[in-house]
Amino acid sequence: MRIARFSIDGNVAFGAVEGPSAPGAEADLVLDIIKGIPYADFELSGVKVPLSKVRLLPPVLPSKVVAVGRNYAEHAAELGNAVLDDQGRPDAPLTFFKPSTSVTGPGDDIAYPSFSSELHHEAELAVVIGRMCREVPRERVKDVVLGYTCANDVTARDVQQREKQWARAKGFDTSCPLGPWVETDLDPADLTVQCTVNGQQRQLGRTSDMIRSVEDLIVHISEAMTLLPGDVILTGTPAGVGPLNVGDEVAVTIEGIGTLTNKVIKRG
Amino acid sequence: MRIARFSIDGNVAFGAVEGPSAPGAEADLVLDIIKGIPYADFELSGVKVPLSKVRLLPPVLPSKVVAVGRNYAEHAAELGNAVLDDQGRPDAPLTFFKPSTSVTGPGDDIAYPSFSSELHHEAELAVVIGRMCREVPRERVKDVVLGYTCANDVTARDVQQREKQWARAKGFDTSCPLGPWVETDLDPADLTVQCTVNGQQRQLGRTSDMIRSVEDLIVHISEAMTLLPGDVILTGTPAGVGPLNVGDEVAVTIEGIGTLTNKVIKRG
Repeated sequence: MRIARFSIDGNVAFGAVEGPSAPGAEADLVLDIIKGIPYADFELSGVKVPLSKVRLLPPVLPSKVVAVGRNYAEHAAELGNAVLDDQGRPDAPLTFFKPSTSVTGPGDDIAYPSFSSELHHEAELAVVIGRMCREVPRERVKDVVLGYTCANDVTARDVQQREKQWARAKGFDTSCPLGPWVETDLDPADLTVQCTVNGQQRQLGRTSDMIRSVEDLIVHISEAMTLLPGDVILTGTPAGVGPLNVGDEVAVTIEGIGTLTNKVIKRG
Repeated sequence: MRIARFSIDGNVAFGAVEGPSAPGAEADLVLDIIKGIPYADFELSGVKVPLSKVRLLPPVLPSKVVAVGRNYAEHAAELGNAVLDDQGRPDAPLTFFKPSTSVTGPGDDIAYPSFSSELHHEAELAVVIGRMCREVPRERVKDVVLGYTCANDVTARDVQQREKQWARAKGFDTSCPLGPWVETDLDPADLTVQCTVNGQQRQLGRTSDMIRSVEDLIVHISEAMTLLPGDVILTGTPAGVGPLNVGDEVAVTIEGIGTLTNKVIKRG
């Protein structure tokens, strides 16, 4: 099931997206409005609205987004970072937060921050947590995942290089586009992750190349902290990151989910 | 005014703390229950309850805690970190997040995480944001601050040294004790910040030794991100950080605010 969050006539609701999955067929999609919230047992209301009549919102409102760096070897190499230590062991996973105020939705604008002159796209598979959990054993990971969506871990690369911790470089307003919806029936093990800018391909990878899998990451992160329904785990970006400029349209497409498109504007 | 958040008979409310400020006089304190929330104009109800009859909670429920590292030169030096770059200029401020799930209240337990064997206390002045803001000019900082409280930026020092970003090392559950209340009438420029463990002094510093002031930090952070009412800025820790062990009682005392006390337990 594809679960979207949307506003219509000033009301916010969740809905199940029905219709063809093929790219370009969005005009035919319909939302069946969900009674209640998708983090518990829920029913479809049977009340349907065309997707074209609503405004899609970020599919979740996370209390936190936990992201991982350098989870694709080729991307780590392109930024000059090793993924193995001096003894040839994999480095400890590199985890950081993006705050709730960084989240923005499909079709929303990415506001180029005033303190950067080198904004980069980073297309990523996002895991949406469905239930409160901590110290999740590997075999229970599937029980705590609601589904998957597309993310863009937009990064002020120049600031990231200057500031040793990344709260500003990766936590500024609109630096975390999520969407267009959460796909609940998906095996994340081997999906293509693609990023285009103005229609030109920039990134193309497969989740099978992730150094640490979705299970690894949830075990590792939940060892330290409670995850709440709606929290989001970003799983790292494949090679091909590069600049975004004002006016660019950036699109993240993940196999089996859909496309998250955002335009870059000057911060007002 | 000292604003506390508390629970009594299963209800949660804010209250103004009335009574002597002297240490040891807590038994005589009374809470005047606030009508509404302290992030807007509010009135006192006149309904008073003794502090001894309530359970104090974290004085705020932040959407995010934004913390700064190496803001006292002596502390940076004790961990072997420079605060000046090769050209003798101050390094860029080092900012990181602690998530809402890390926040715990006065008197609550700090749960020693299973993945660390070197937990450290870090006593810090915490700034509580009173209104939604972004790109705050220096002269408006006072308008967006609700007040100040005590914080302990509890850190898994061994994990911090291993993992290049600090989401786990500084973001685990109970790693952010806050309290006991928010003092709204306070000049943060020159206050003693003290930490004791089992009654023995470990840290003692003055906020006048901060490399970047409260104004500097709010200008810097809000340049990148929207701050919401209840969000918290941690301003860095003075020298003297050191280990916490299971069974320890750690107390952070800040001049003009009060004392935040927590006990370290084994994570259950």
